[in-house]
This record gives sequence, C-alpha cells and structure tokens, in this order.
Amino acid sequence: MSKKNNQDKLLIFALGGVGEIGKNMYCIQYANDIVVVDAGLKFPEEEMLGIDVVIPDITYLTDNRDKVRGILLTHGHEDHIGGLPYVLKHLNVPVYGTKLTLGLVENKLKEAGLLGDTKRHLITADSTLTLGTIQASFFRTNHSIPDSVGICLETPEGIVVHTGDFKFDHTPVNEQYADLQRMAEIGSRGVLALLSDSTNAERAGFTPSESNIGKEFEEIFRSSKQRVVVATFASNVHRIQQVINAALETRRKMTVIGRSMVNVVSIASELGYLNIPEGMLIEPEEVNKLPADRVVILSTGSQGEPMSALTRMARSTHRKVDILPGDTVVIAATPIPGNEKYVGRTVDELMRLGASVIYGPGSISGVHVSGHGSQEELKLMLNLMRPQYFIPIHGEYRMLRHHGLLGESVGIDKENIFLIDNGDVVEFQGGTARKAGKVPAGNVLIDGLGVGDVGNIVLRDRKLLSQDGILVVVVTLSKQDGTILSGPDIISRGFVYVRESEGLLEEANRIVSSTLHKLMNDKVNEWASLKTNVKEALGRFLYEQTRRRPMILPIIMEV
Amino acid sequence: MSKKNNQDKLLIFALGGVGEIGKNMYCIQYANDIVVVDAGLKFPEEEMLGIDVVIPDITYLTDNRDKVRGILLTHGHEDHIGGLPYVLKHLNVPVYGTKLTLGLVENKLKEAGLLGDTKRHLITADSTLTLGTIQASFFRTNHSIPDSVGICLETPEGIVVHTGDFKFDHTPVNEQYADLQRMAEIGSRGVLALLSDSTNAERAGFTPSESNIGKEFEEIFRSSKQRVVVATFASNVHRIQQVINAALETRRKMTVIGRSMVNVVSIASELGYLNIPEGMLIEPEEVNKLPADRVVILSTGSQGEPMSALTRMARSTHRKVDILPGDTVVIAATPIPGNEKYVGRTVDELMRLGASVIYGPGSISGVHVSGHGSQEELKLMLNLMRPQYFIPIHGEYRMLRHHGLLGESVGIDKENIFLIDNGDVVEFQGGTARKAGKVPAGNVLIDGLGVGDVGNIVLRDRKLLSQDGILVVVVTLSKQDGTILSGPDIISRGFVYVRESEGLLEEANRIVSSTLHKLMNDKVNEWASLKTNVKEALGRFLYEQTRRRPMILPIIMEV
Repeated sequence: MSKKNNQDKLLIFALGGVGEIGKNMYCIQYANDIVVVDAGLKFPEEEMLGIDVVIPDITYLTDNRDKVRGILLTHGHEDHIGGLPYVLKHLNVPVYGTKLTLGLVENKLKEAGLLGDTKRHLITADSTLTLGTIQASFFRTNHSIPDSVGICLETPEGIVVHTGDFKFDHTPVNEQYADLQRMAEIGSRGVLALLSDSTNAERAGFTPSESNIGKEFEEIFRSSKQRVVVATFASNVHRIQQVINAALETRRKMTVIGRSMVNVVSIASELGYLNIPEGMLIEPEEVNKLPADRVVILSTGSQGEPMSALTRMARSTHRKVDILPGDTVVIAATPIPGNEKYVGRTVDELMRLGASVIYGPGSISGVHVSGHGSQEELKLMLNLMRPQYFIPIHGEYRMLRHHGLLGESVGIDKENIFLIDNGDVVEFQGGTARKAGKVPAGNVLIDGLGVGDVGNIVLRDRKLLSQDGILVVVVTLSKQDGTILSGPDIISRGFVYVRESEGLLEEANRIVSSTLHKLMNDKVNEWASLKTNVKEALGRFLYEQTRRRPMILPIIMEV
Repeated sequence: MSKKNNQDKLLIFALGGVGEIGKNMYCIQYANDIVVVDAGLKFPEEEMLGIDVVIPDITYLTDNRDKVRGILLTHGHEDHIGGLPYVLKHLNVPVYGTKLTLGLVENKLKEAGLLGDTKRHLITADSTLTLGTIQASFFRTNHSIPDSVGICLETPEGIVVHTGDFKFDHTPVNEQYADLQRMAEIGSRGVLALLSDSTNAERAGFTPSESNIGKEFEEIFRSSKQRVVVATFASNVHRIQQVINAALETRRKMTVIGRSMVNVVSIASELGYLNIPEGMLIEPEEVNKLPADRVVILSTGSQGEPMSALTRMARSTHRKVDILPGDTVVIAATPIPGNEKYVGRTVDELMRLGASVIYGPGSISGVHVSGHGSQEELKLMLNLMRPQYFIPIHGEYRMLRHHGLLGESVGIDKENIFLIDNGDVVEFQGGTARKAGKVPAGNVLIDGLGVGDVGNIVLRDRKLLSQDGILVVVVTLSKQDGTILSGPDIISRGFVYVRESEGLLEEANRIVSSTLHKLMNDKVNEWASLKTNVKEALGRFLYEQTRRRPMILPIIMEV
C-alpha cells in the first residue's frame, strides 16, 4: 500500500449513475489523485423535449484537470462509455479498458474525430496500474457484453471496490467465469468501501444464465418452416453467438441488418469475441435467393425504436428485407421502461403481416435473461467483499434503497451504508466515513451539436409549444406618432386547424386591434406595456373560447 | 325471436376498442335498428401532443340518428362511459345502465350540463329491453368495478353476446357471482356471434380473486406502527371496501383524498355499493389529531399521475397531508403501460421521505389483481357461449390475435373468427357472415373545449415545435420601393438559451439580411419567394451550426 499522509482524505462521489439509470461516472480521489470510473450517457426523459442524449456535468473534473489520472472503463455499454466523446473533448486524459471495450470506444472516438488525440491503454483482468497514489487492479465479471470487469482501487486509506455491472453466470456462453477466487482474495484483504450494481436489487432470487437461451433459439429455428428474424441488443455478443450457433445447428445462413448490429458484429468478430463460421454470413440482398427455412435475420429494433431495422420491416419500409406471412420474429429483450408501447406497436404490425412473434408476457422467459444480478447474487458479492462501508450505485433511489437493505441483511451496519445522490461526497479519513458536502453534478443536455445550450427555459418553452402551439402577433407602428401602420397580423402554428377556426382567429384579431387602439388613446406607448396588454387580452379570450393557453408572442415593429 | 325479413342483414362493427385499449364503442345493427354498446374515451398517445382525451368518430351514428335506439352500458369505467358527454351532445339517445354505472354517468352529465336533456334508464341484470327488432337482456359478470354486466342481444338473424369487461371471480368481495347459469342458458339457445374481452388474452392461467387482497391489507395495517396510505383506482369499489374492512379490523379511521376518490366513495356509498361503518370516515384535517397507528389514508395517484394526491404527498406539496418517516404507502395497482416511470418516481420520492413503500416487482402480487380474465377464463366464456362466430374485442391487435387463437383452440372454425379494425363491418345474413366494407371510424381528438379542431397538421407542428423550437423572422418593407424599413428581427423560443448563443443569433441575423438584400438587388419581391429564400438560407445555416431544425416563420410586413 502506498504511503499515507495523515492529513489526506479519500473522497468517493458519483457524477452520474445514482438516483437514475444511466450516465454512470464515479470518482475516487485520494489527495491529488482522481481516478474516474466510466463515462456514460443516458437517454432523455420524456419531458426533455428535443434532447438527444444526456451526459454528466464534469465541472469538478475540468476544475481539477491536473489531478485526473485517467478514466477506467468497466465495460462497453453506452451508459458506461457513451459520454466519452463529450468528456474527452474537455478533458484529455488517458482511457483504460479491456479489448472489446476499447474496440467499441475507438469506433466512437473515430466518429467524433478524437481518436488521434486520446491516449488509450489496453488492460486485461490481470493488469495492475499505478495512478498516482492509487493502485488499480481488475476482476472478471459476467454481464450482457463480454470483457466486463470490476475494479479494485488500493488507496492509502484502504481498498475501494467498484463492481461495474455484473451477474454471476455459472455457465457463461464464452466460458469466461466471474473470477470468484480473486474477489474472495480482495475480500480477505479487507475492503474499506464497496460500490455495487443495484439495477436488479428489487428482484428476488438468481438471474438465469445466458446460456439457457441457446437451446430455445435452436428449438425455434428448427420448428420454423420459414425465415426467422431475431432482434436483440446489438451489444449482447453472447446472445449473437448463440444465434450463430443455433443457425449452424439448423443449417441456416445469417444476415445482419441495422447499423449498430452490423457495427458490433464487425468489431466483435474482428477482435475474436464472435466465432462466425466460414460462409455463414450472407448479404441482405441474398436472403431472397435462399429457401425461407435456410435463413436467419439478425436485427436491431428489440425496443421498437421508430427508426430501427425491425420497425422498418414491420412497416414494410425496409429497403432490403420484407416480412412474409409465416415468418417467425423473436424479440429477445424486455422493453426498457418507457418503451413498452413502441414494442407493442411493432408486435402488432408484425402480426398484421402474418408473422408469428415470440415476445413479452409468457414467452419472454425463454429468449431473454437480464445481465444484472438479482438479490441472491448481490448478497453473494457483498459477502465475497465483506466491506466496512457500502455505497449502492447504478440505479434509481428505490433500487439503491433495496440494495441498502440487502446490505443490512448480510450484516453491514446501517450507519455504514451510504445512499448518495449525484455530487454527494463521502469522505474517508482514519478509517471512518461521513458525508462531506457536494461537488457540482447534474444533467448536461445535448441537442444536435449543442452541449449545454438547452436549459430549463428552453425546455419549458418547448413544453408550452408542444401543448397548445404558438400565436405570433405582429404590428407595425409609426415612429412619429405611434399609429398602427400595418397589422395586427396573427400567425398560428400548432394551435388550431386554421381552416376550421377562421372565425376564432378573426375575433382574436379584432381583440388585439381594439386593445391596441385603446392603449393608443390612453397614450400608452411603451413597447413593454403594449406587449403585456396584448398578451393578456388575447390569452384571456383564447382561454375562454378554447380552454387552451398557446404561447403568445407579440412583435412590435417601428418604422 | 322477432319477425325476420329475408332482405335484412345484421351488421356488427366497432367505432372504437379494437386495435387499441380504450374508447370502446360497438354497434349492432339489424335493418333500421342500431344498438350501441358503451361510449368510452381513451387517453392520448405520447405523440398526440397537448391532447386531453380521444373519443370515437360517431359520424355513422349521426348520419343514421333516426335508427339509433339507445346506448347500453356494460360498466362505469372511463373507457366505456367517458365519451358519453361528447356523444350525447351530438346524438341525444336514451342511455341504459345498472345503478352504479348510471350514478357515475349522471355525475359526468351534470358536469357537462347535459343531465336534464338525457333520457336515462336504470336496468338490472334481470331487465329485458325491446329496442326495435332487437331484444336486449343482461348477465352479471365480475370486474374491477361493481355492477358490471354482459349483454345478450336477440336479433332476427340470431343472438349476439357482448361480454363487456369480465373475469370469473369465484369468491367476489360483494358476493355478486358471475351468472354462470344464465350464460350457460344463453349458450344452450345457440349464439350466433360472441364479442369478448381480450385485455388479458396474452396471460396464461386464471386471474386471482379480488378477495385475496383483503387479508394482505389487514396484515399490512396490523404490522405498521404508523399511518398507512393506500393508493388505488378510484373506481375499484371492491378494493376500497376491503380497505375499509381492514381498517375496521385494525381499529383505524379512514380519510379519503383526491378528487375522483372522494367522488366515487360518495356516489358508491350513497347507492349502497360501499358499506362504511358509522364514525369510520374522518376529514383530512383530523388525521394529525389521531395517533399515527389509528389512521388509513385512501388516495388517488396509483399511476403516479403528476397532479394526483399521492404525487403531491410524495413531493410534500399536498395541502393537508404530509408523509412522515415510518409511514407505509401501499400502491395497490400495476402501472398502465407508459406510466412505469411516473410510478417509479413517486416511489423514489416517497422513499426519500422515509416511507416504506409496497409496490411493483415482487410485492405487487399481494395488493393488486387484474379485473380482466386470463386465458382459462376466456376459454370458459367461449365454451359457455359456444358461438358460431367469434369477434375478439377490447385490445391491441396482438391481444385480439391471441384471443382468436384461444377461440381456435376450443374448436371455433378459423374462418368464423373475425379480427376487425375499428370501422370494419361484419355482415350476417342467412346464417353466414362476411366482412362487408367499412363505416367511418377514427380518433376524434379533444383539446380543451375543441373537439376535432386539432388534426394532423396541428399535431405535426406541435411535434416540430417540441423538438427544436421556433424562430420568427420579422421584416418590414416599404410598399413604394420594397426597401427594408425595419428588421430583420429574429425572435426564438425553445431553440437555444439566448444568452449563451448571442453570436449564433447575430450571425443568423446577418444571413437573413444578406439574403434579403441579394433578393432586392435581383428584383425578387413576391412575398412567397422572399419567405422561401429566407427560410432556406436560415434553415441551412442553423442546421450546419447546430444540427437542429427549428421551425422558421418568416413574417413580412409592408407599410
């Protein structure tokens, strides 16, 4: 263990990932050394209108850029690596990851034009890194993407363990077992603090093994007399391997559609994470040349995403592949909360085309398992590590709370369990811990190329506009005497269907005119009060007539 | 059976309720007699921005108003009665319903000022009605609201049965058993066509009895040392009764909060559907005067609705009731698809206040059961009726399809099962049926007081506005020589945070100016091409700079 200065403290905090699902980013700081774990994104909440993605606020890191020793990546999912292109643009620090993780990161950095500027370091589960006063080592875990690791950080104040996303799969598809021995060994050395994945903390029991799915695929492929379409998460390389294996067993060829699926299959097979037999892959254009029962189509769209390959096929708008009556479609995923309706619509559309669809309630158990450990696995991790302090991470508050209760159930003192919000700092000194203030943390919204230029005011306006639309009222006044030279003209968008509401808009115009004339007569001619009066009078009229409150934008020109 | 004319036909079609959940409305027409079953609303899809509710298009009925003999109601849920105020305004026909159903309808009509004008007829499960050539009788069913019935319509062409929403609850809370004997009797007389509830057609097995929940409530009430809040659907009178019973057993008093809950409790107890012991009910203001373990709070908000009582309590903004650490909150409902996130947030907020929350995954089985029958119950209904033709209703396409397969599994000919869309007419003549054209059907969108004045163009504009906002470009030209007298001025809303983007907007202004000057020099001065050119130039610039496509509204004034 490194040298310890009695004044120095260990700080642990999250810039993203607690009290939410996504944009994972955790910081472990000892004295002047900051190690960052992951840099994820999350997808916008419903009320973040027009926003593309959300990343963590990294003000603390850019303010302390000299101290940041690097970003360690646990695995290659978007909620752990998706924020990297934005983060690295402002904070050029080295990035550490396993082979597949780095492969996916490099693809991302290439698109962002950052590949050349970023120091990338390949690690294996056996690597050890020295990052200032902090030593990092790793342990293999199981997850729904290969090459996932947990991280052990030895600091002068004690050992901090970050599990990353994990489950315990005792029959993993790639025979890469979770490294129970190393975890036990870390635990036996004494863990000061454990940060552990809470995603499935509400779920009792054990999460089933990914390898259960293979037999199910084989059975479906064998019994189907026509083409089989399998939609799943592009990053689930184990599942893709099982599709390939089942296709091989049932003498089917496979084609891959959907940008991210093509992408991952190419990277994963190049790096040796997918074993695709010679001659198995065919181009989408070749599908129609083969007998229907000799084809498997691997596709994106398991969440019913409107622009995905599966959705296009379901709507008969895919350029290359049509769904034919009698085809079988397997949706090998559960809907992420919020996506249920999209998935439901896709299923409806596929069924209307005459396809058999294997999905959702009832049938799902066979073709999907979670990548996150359930309660028994979370307790296993807690007992392997036997930490003095426990910080549940990765999850909404209720998941963190459930995980906290699991911690209590295996004997961790309630006072030693910290349920934190993003930005909350837990400070360790002399073997004891306490909450110690906050660092800046929050959502940075990305809309197109804009990072952080959409804030609450813009979102509030979008919300208003989306509910009842907008009316623009334009009038031109004379600079000399303040008389109306032109207008008022009212233009509306998103308010009412104009042809059906001519009377309403004419009346609205009369109200604006008479309001203006009255103000003129009263010699009121400051723009601000003209605008306020027009807005109020028109707003009141429209609410009375329609019970709607469109945005009203009065524009006064002077010539 | 009434007299039969060989030329006459029986028509069955849905104006709402198939291919969707909600706005149920079914028509059974023989010759010049139309009987309507239910008149529901549905809540808007995510993409119907600003819309309050959706009702069926009743053009066919208003075009044939002389033939409409009445609207029969199966039960008092919003998706079966919520469209009545809108429908009755355009189609003043008699309404038939059981006591609780009519009680809820009358409350609705009173609010809409339609009570005096509407003929309302109270029926019981034993009533028989003659509606022109059609005879209507009823049979008791079980559902998540009391007083639900199925409908048997005897037409000269044969018997049509409409189940309404149903389950088979062998231990109903109110001891009102589903009338198996009458159903069997109808079946033994020969059913031409069965229209049956498909809501749970994807769910295997039997739906548990509502009465299972009572013991669970009692256990929770007994073991809690503080106040218990129970949130459930206001219309679930059986469940409310069980809350009351458990409160009585555990010596707690009950208060009721949330507008619709207060409403239903008052109507249901007035009509004798709720048995509330003397002295049980207290006002919300009295809650704090009683010991915490002597109180139950019955509340709306089981779907996490933003304005509901439970959500207000969770956010500490309820005027009368606060959540205290140690309180227990029971959410006795499953989230309707789309509401998962709202419910999750409410749970998080309640937990942050220190409440124990009983909800969702794992714990839900004890405090919620569905009101709709699962596959075994649907097969039971099919076999009680043994219909010649089968039309699955109430459900998205995939549910109808599953229900159709259940029909096949009990021996109904595949050709005799009709999966219909809203508006599809199934025509019966001489004992055979066929699809025969369409009647108008669709969504009528209601926004505030406007019925049908928001169409696709308005929704498309709202969508655009919600994504990237709007820029209004105003310029005043001289009538004489077309020179620019004032502007261009650019006003943006919902696009960028203006203070952070001054440079961008200044540059945008320069681009509009130079575009206009160039056009002037080229003697282009028709408004249309000025507007188009400004829109294109500005749109291109903004897309290049921001990758956003705000709505651009050029306004040219002439003085």
